[in-house]
Amino acid sequence: MSAKTARQKWLPALPILDWGRRYNQDKLTGDLLAAVIVTLMLIPQSLAYAMLAGLPPEVGLYTSIAPLVLYAIFGSSRVLAVGPVAVVSLMTATAIGDHAVAGSQAYWAIAITLAFLSGAMLFIMGILRLGFLANFLSHPVISGFISAAGLLIAAGQLKILLGVSYMGVTANGDNFFAQMASLAQQIPHIHALTFTVGTLTLIFLLSIRIGLKPLLTRLGMSPKTATTLARIGPVVAIVATIFLTYIFQWQTQGLKIVGSIPQGLPPFSMPLWDLSLWKELALPALLISIVGFVESISVGQTLAAKKRQRIEPDQELVALGASNLSASFTGGFPVTGGFARSVVNFDAGARTPAAGVFTAIGIALAALFLTPMLFYLPQATLSATIIIAVLSLVDFSILKKTWRYSKSDFAAAIITLLVTLIINVEIGLLVGISVSLALYLYRTSRPHIATVGMVPGTEHFRNVLRHDVLVSPKLVSLRVDGSLYFANVRALEDSVNEAVATHPQLQHLVLQCSAINDVDASALESLEAINQRLSDAGIALHLSEVKGPVMDKLQQTDFLRDLSGQIFLTHYQAIHELVPEIQR
Amino acid sequence: MSAKTARQKWLPALPILDWGRRYNQDKLTGDLLAAVIVTLMLIPQSLAYAMLAGLPPEVGLYTSIAPLVLYAIFGSSRVLAVGPVAVVSLMTATAIGDHAVAGSQAYWAIAITLAFLSGAMLFIMGILRLGFLANFLSHPVISGFISAAGLLIAAGQLKILLGVSYMGVTANGDNFFAQMASLAQQIPHIHALTFTVGTLTLIFLLSIRIGLKPLLTRLGMSPKTATTLARIGPVVAIVATIFLTYIFQWQTQGLKIVGSIPQGLPPFSMPLWDLSLWKELALPALLISIVGFVESISVGQTLAAKKRQRIEPDQELVALGASNLSASFTGGFPVTGGFARSVVNFDAGARTPAAGVFTAIGIALAALFLTPMLFYLPQATLSATIIIAVLSLVDFSILKKTWRYSKSDFAAAIITLLVTLIINVEIGLLVGISVSLALYLYRTSRPHIATVGMVPGTEHFRNVLRHDVLVSPKLVSLRVDGSLYFANVRALEDSVNEAVATHPQLQHLVLQCSAINDVDASALESLEAINQRLSDAGIALHLSEVKGPVMDKLQQTDFLRDLSGQIFLTHYQAIHELVPEIQR
Repeated sequence: MSAKTARQKWLPALPILDWGRRYNQDKLTGDLLAAVIVTLMLIPQSLAYAMLAGLPPEVGLYTSIAPLVLYAIFGSSRVLAVGPVAVVSLMTATAIGDHAVAGSQAYWAIAITLAFLSGAMLFIMGILRLGFLANFLSHPVISGFISAAGLLIAAGQLKILLGVSYMGVTANGDNFFAQMASLAQQIPHIHALTFTVGTLTLIFLLSIRIGLKPLLTRLGMSPKTATTLARIGPVVAIVATIFLTYIFQWQTQGLKIVGSIPQGLPPFSMPLWDLSLWKELALPALLISIVGFVESISVGQTLAAKKRQRIEPDQELVALGASNLSASFTGGFPVTGGFARSVVNFDAGARTPAAGVFTAIGIALAALFLTPMLFYLPQATLSATIIIAVLSLVDFSILKKTWRYSKSDFAAAIITLLVTLIINVEIGLLVGISVSLALYLYRTSRPHIATVGMVPGTEHFRNVLRHDVLVSPKLVSLRVDGSLYFANVRALEDSVNEAVATHPQLQHLVLQCSAINDVDASALESLEAINQRLSDAGIALHLSEVKGPVMDKLQQTDFLRDLSGQIFLTHYQAIHELVPEIQR
Repeated sequence: MSAKTARQKWLPALPILDWGRRYNQDKLTGDLLAAVIVTLMLIPQSLAYAMLAGLPPEVGLYTSIAPLVLYAIFGSSRVLAVGPVAVVSLMTATAIGDHAVAGSQAYWAIAITLAFLSGAMLFIMGILRLGFLANFLSHPVISGFISAAGLLIAAGQLKILLGVSYMGVTANGDNFFAQMASLAQQIPHIHALTFTVGTLTLIFLLSIRIGLKPLLTRLGMSPKTATTLARIGPVVAIVATIFLTYIFQWQTQGLKIVGSIPQGLPPFSMPLWDLSLWKELALPALLISIVGFVESISVGQTLAAKKRQRIEPDQELVALGASNLSASFTGGFPVTGGFARSVVNFDAGARTPAAGVFTAIGIALAALFLTPMLFYLPQATLSATIIIAVLSLVDFSILKKTWRYSKSDFAAAIITLLVTLIINVEIGLLVGISVSLALYLYRTSRPHIATVGMVPGTEHFRNVLRHDVLVSPKLVSLRVDGSLYFANVRALEDSVNEAVATHPQLQHLVLQCSAINDVDASALESLEAINQRLSDAGIALHLSEVKGPVMDKLQQTDFLRDLSGQIFLTHYQAIHELVPEIQR
């Protein structure tokens, strides 16, 4: 029994054994319908995000097959739809940009290696149960980062939409403001036909998103079905622009098209076994892993909660790790769970991860048979679909909200946003994490320490600065509102020193410990030093209202033995005994 | 008035104006006596620590003049004695070792630049009131670091003592274990005369430290005076070995001596204005500043408290900054407040910082007139004084203490100790700080969250796992023991998800907020998400016992408006109203 438990703890679980055993006709119907709709949504997204990552479009299709199957085996979410997503694709482009030219074979090989490293990291983090690491990415940092990434992506795609740049040469990693400036300079060189096709697609997609849903709802369709239908808008845009380009042969007039895409299933691929490359890719791979994990788990949790289900963060790491590893062996780039896609999967009635397997089959069929039809697909159409998709990422409401609620959260959000826009996604994320941790540590390093006095006629004690309370020149009571640890214990020393310096007749100092949940070794040493210093100055140090667990810990130490004063159960007892002249 | 306050806030204070105005004959006597004793102690230390830093001995004297005067003007401690100290000298040697050969002019110029950078950083940190930064250095990290530095220093000096190496060629920055191994290899090459002089000095100093004090005390001397006299032991050793070397002309038999030292006051010097050098020295200079500041402030606070005085951390930064800047303009290297020296100064009766000025005059006289007499001083004698001085730094009791008290503090101490020994002081300190912060963040990211139930017959609630309490399948009560912030709010989400998944009949979830002192923006968003998810699943979220300041903050948000449940003043009211069938 215990051997089995140990094995269960160290080996990744296989949720498929759970839901697979209870699979039935009813679930099959729901999964199949959802898979058809997600496949229709995923085909244009795969092509577009491959392009955004600087890779040939077919790589997008390759990346949407094996990872889905692996997620179905290991994933703990019933409805999460994995595959290429916008932010991770941008991060991929940024990570590879310094090493190879977008569109080249070398670039693709590095993308495969990045998927391998990211997959290996996620898998190992899952096995070691390090899912908690993602907790150190605060909401303001994530929001600032995602908004900035959305703006960076839109800026890059705008160039393709205007016909001043094209697939594979978009500088995704650039400074946002520099990109906008160069865009402004290039306005005279806009390619009219590309601009027309791109802009009309954009308007069409926007009006579908804004207008179709209310229209369908008014025609009596359920809001969920209407939303799902609106999500397939890009397929219509793609079919229409392919058809028009074919009819009018617009590519002869300079419209950039996708061109010939190799037909067939994903190739077997291997990461580059190059340690120096691995070292350079390690940090980007880690950041991609963490961002992908956070994105995936937040949508997974939201959807699971709607059906009173749970997802297991460490199991999700294993599943995303396996997905990315499978991507690296089938010519793919980093993947994660996509928000819009998973919501559509959920709304369309997916019941089990089998829907992901059916979607993978759908994409495989597309890779086998559909690619010749994509020859005439204008790149501007794909750019328009990307721009529409990332517009929903850009959301400055966090700035307004945190500005009102908490200035330090606001600082974390705005710094992440600006550094990501001005430098790049990697530095932006790292600076954001550092700033949010630094601000948290700064806050905890200044605990609230109040000098308290007795409320007349009661046994209660309150801050002397806020209330009219009884005090004595012989005794000072200090209350620390927080646990004591190395970074905040100096604040206590300062308060004690100040109390001593301002009370020449001081004989007793009482620490009211009711809010102290923990005392670390540094704080213990400081308490010993405070006790020693007070004792040298002829002042006794007393403690009151020490919590049980803290008392247990202190009892193993010399501090209590050397304590010059006493320990009181209640603060009132301390005052009553030490300065009986203060009457309540 | 407010203009004056603002000026007082931004301009560094001049404590000298305070104590200088009330200076009198009585204080003069105390200060003069203390200055004579500290000067006698500081002369050998200055020479020895300059040697340890890889600099010519006279530089040690130069470094003990201007900085003392500047500290007397700006410092807030009455008795802190600044000058070269062991650990900072080792850090100086490590920082410069990669850039120049010890003993060369270039090396000296870089030492001056290091003092300048360190001084500028301290001064600016003081003006900006960044003294709290030093709080992030925990006691276990400091202890591990200081012990390792002591071992590294002793290992380097042991080579000089054995005559297998000499001043200026000691590899201070090396791996401790590699140093010990090379020492073992060099045992056959020990220089017998050097070994004899060094070892006898060592034994003499040890016996003075161990035996003289009890002896003098037994002869009726006060313990303080006995300690002070024992501290001047090195002067006796120096005079004796100079005399013997002169008589027997031991330098002709291969005993390394200090040799000719230029006679005169410190030269006027300037740091190197080389930005690329500054960049490389920035991190070492920052670490030297922080270590020096922490060492200085801990001794300053200990001594000030004995006389019920206070020192001002930010003012200390300004004073140490000014001291180091003055060192860089008078040919010196980084300085800070020394522990042993300040204790002697205090015990010998120093009353004001004027004692430091008198000490500076004493050292200046030594630099002017005493240096010819130091010609015959054996290097082995200086090494012996350094070894004795640093032995008191090596203290492994922190390991034993933290092992019993707190495993994470133990981890921080042992990692700092080992990395410092194996790599170097800089990496050791950085790793130590990172590990201690990471462990703290890890601890706070897993707050204690208890599911509570009602103690029968009372209005109290306790952990269901520990007590026999009343619960209902319709309601779950969760109590979070700690403030909610981005790194720990996922733990709350997990607990809520688990409660929902394990209670199929759940209708109400009540958060008992009595221990929550703060809710940051991430935690607020998570609470909103929890409320939304619970609401989607038909479960109402309630809050109880929300603290006043937290309530004030939440009231500015939409969370309270959208809350599916209610807010109760006490947890008992919540239970009583929501599941009245649970009777107390």
